[in-house]
Amino acid sequence: MSVTAAKGFTAAGVAAGIKQNGNPDLALVVNNGPRSAAAGVFTSNRVQAAPVQWSREALADGHVSAVVLNSGGANACTGPEGHQDTITTAQRAAELLGRGVEEIAVASTGLIGVRLPMDKLLTGLETAAGQLSEHSGEKAAIAIKTTDTVHKTSVYQGDGWTVGGMAKGAGMLAPGLATMLAVITTDADLPSAVLGKALRDATRTTFDRVDSDGCMSTNDTVLLLASGAAEAAPAEEEFAEAVRAVCADLARQLIGDAEGASKDIRIEVTGADSETDAVEVGRTIARNNLLKCAIHGEDPNWGRVLSAIGTTSAVFDPDRLNVAINDVWVCKGGSVGEDRSLVDMSGREVRITADLAAGTESAVIWANDLTAQYVHENSEYSS
Amino acid sequence: MSVTAAKGFTAAGVAAGIKQNGNPDLALVVNNGPRSAAAGVFTSNRVQAAPVQWSREALADGHVSAVVLNSGGANACTGPEGHQDTITTAQRAAELLGRGVEEIAVASTGLIGVRLPMDKLLTGLETAAGQLSEHSGEKAAIAIKTTDTVHKTSVYQGDGWTVGGMAKGAGMLAPGLATMLAVITTDADLPSAVLGKALRDATRTTFDRVDSDGCMSTNDTVLLLASGAAEAAPAEEEFAEAVRAVCADLARQLIGDAEGASKDIRIEVTGADSETDAVEVGRTIARNNLLKCAIHGEDPNWGRVLSAIGTTSAVFDPDRLNVAINDVWVCKGGSVGEDRSLVDMSGREVRITADLAAGTESAVIWANDLTAQYVHENSEYSS
Repeated sequence: MSVTAAKGFTAAGVAAGIKQNGNPDLALVVNNGPRSAAAGVFTSNRVQAAPVQWSREALADGHVSAVVLNSGGANACTGPEGHQDTITTAQRAAELLGRGVEEIAVASTGLIGVRLPMDKLLTGLETAAGQLSEHSGEKAAIAIKTTDTVHKTSVYQGDGWTVGGMAKGAGMLAPGLATMLAVITTDADLPSAVLGKALRDATRTTFDRVDSDGCMSTNDTVLLLASGAAEAAPAEEEFAEAVRAVCADLARQLIGDAEGASKDIRIEVTGADSETDAVEVGRTIARNNLLKCAIHGEDPNWGRVLSAIGTTSAVFDPDRLNVAINDVWVCKGGSVGEDRSLVDMSGREVRITADLAAGTESAVIWANDLTAQYVHENSEYSS
Repeated sequence: MSVTAAKGFTAAGVAAGIKQNGNPDLALVVNNGPRSAAAGVFTSNRVQAAPVQWSREALADGHVSAVVLNSGGANACTGPEGHQDTITTAQRAAELLGRGVEEIAVASTGLIGVRLPMDKLLTGLETAAGQLSEHSGEKAAIAIKTTDTVHKTSVYQGDGWTVGGMAKGAGMLAPGLATMLAVITTDADLPSAVLGKALRDATRTTFDRVDSDGCMSTNDTVLLLASGAAEAAPAEEEFAEAVRAVCADLARQLIGDAEGASKDIRIEVTGADSETDAVEVGRTIARNNLLKCAIHGEDPNWGRVLSAIGTTSAVFDPDRLNVAINDVWVCKGGSVGEDRSLVDMSGREVRITADLAAGTESAVIWANDLTAQYVHENSEYSS
């Protein structure tokens, strides 16, 4: 279902030949209205791919009615020619769909610094436009996969309205956002300002708190498109919760399918003086390679948690820190706590709780372990 | 030679049984004067091991005349009992050497969160005190190894005076400082204020710019002890250069022996608006796991360099960035540059030059690649 779960949307996913292995690599998502309100959140990386720059501009007026997404090439760091490739893509989509070029968002993912094979992409786009269907949400989700082993979709059913989405991302996952593309659609009839607020609030505590490998992409794009086809205007709060639920579900799926990972690590920082402190500490723990290796080895090495916390600027007293791994408080008061042999780390999910004992704020960050398989996959990504 | 290259110093290295494998694990370095001026630089981690806290205090008056170092246990996050263990160690050394307890520095390295076997340590200390010799600098250097495959020493010969040193460190290497212990000795006759300035200046551009895995230790300690036995007082600048040379040599040896590494990466950031910018960009590149994997795979993936630069707050224009890998400018003006197939990455050392085209400042950071062997070693470190 994914992006076609909500009324008013059609989609397609095709193999355009951008990927050398012949897998699907081009997706098209079209909003057939009656409304075309939209909002987006993009990477905070200062090196931004051409499609990110284009789509940001296209969204400036709060309206987008179609999205072209390709895997197999990021179109980042490709100079003026790369920018022209994005414009050409949007122009061709506009022609095929009978829309204005400024209504077309573009998103790309794949290797940085390589031009897209535009002849293949444009031919594929034509094919996709001819295959648009309200049953092809899954095909679109499959076509945006890169090293993802499974495609990611999510649907939230409101009272007479729906929010549905798809996402891709398996590596280069780090705050602001993860290396990911996501398109979320709804048939609710809401203005772009409401969409924008709901999307920013949702990504802040979901995609922005996924930190698989500490690396931030040049291409991250999350789009929210509203068709208004349900002829329903849910309360802002209820709608925001629906968007948050879909983003959280997709973010969790990204972590669960991260490159080479054998563990999903849920890091909850509690007792923080501020949410900012909690997030800083959570991210710092999430990025500690030695800890990530220890968790891979099912070793409850809490010393590495403390040494990571010690590098932050958060408010805490080293002698009051408490750390639990899978609910066993292996560190109490900055020193040895319960018997570490009580910790069972055999499951896929590992829960780390870091209590700063400095306040009442908290935050959850999701991360992955560091494995030989991660090294293997990323040693030969572009070779 | 190492710490006994300079006149006035004796040392010992013994197997006290702190390490379960029976390898040497206790070193003693003694300054026999006539002077006992000293200076130290310690980890900037806010979670600090007991010996770091003790040695910082011992150095407050600018004098230390002996150092006890152990591998096999960090004595970090061990509570009040761990603090007492450090004090007991210093007291016993003071008795054995006929010095005041406040003249004894202590340094420990190994697993965090585990008490030291004090009976073995104290017996080993007694043995070491009985074996002190001006020929045992190498033995001391060997006894502080943890996962190091080789011991690290360096000597600078001045005109009638000498600076010599030893260091350990193979993982948890990151700025502020690396996870490392180092003791540097000199027979120059200089006051502690001069030693302190020379040491801080030297570590700032050497040990502080080694970033093997982005992880900062709780135990980092660099000590500089001066005996005055050469009866020579070199010019401050010349002495500072000697200390810098020894620190740079030792830091380079640390990177060359980092856990599981197959490549040493020299990252030079040029054209920066400020040295701070250059260091920030260099460290960010050094810590990018995807880039570290690419370099392991001998893949000149400059896109990962740009995506790392983009996450910094340094002054730069994305469209003016230039990147060379082993002197081939694979990225020019933020886009594709020279043919990446011209890059030969088969050697152990890989040189990345990132030109921010925003000024005239520069900095060099040393890092390592990320390998399956690193994951392997650190998955089972405490198991």
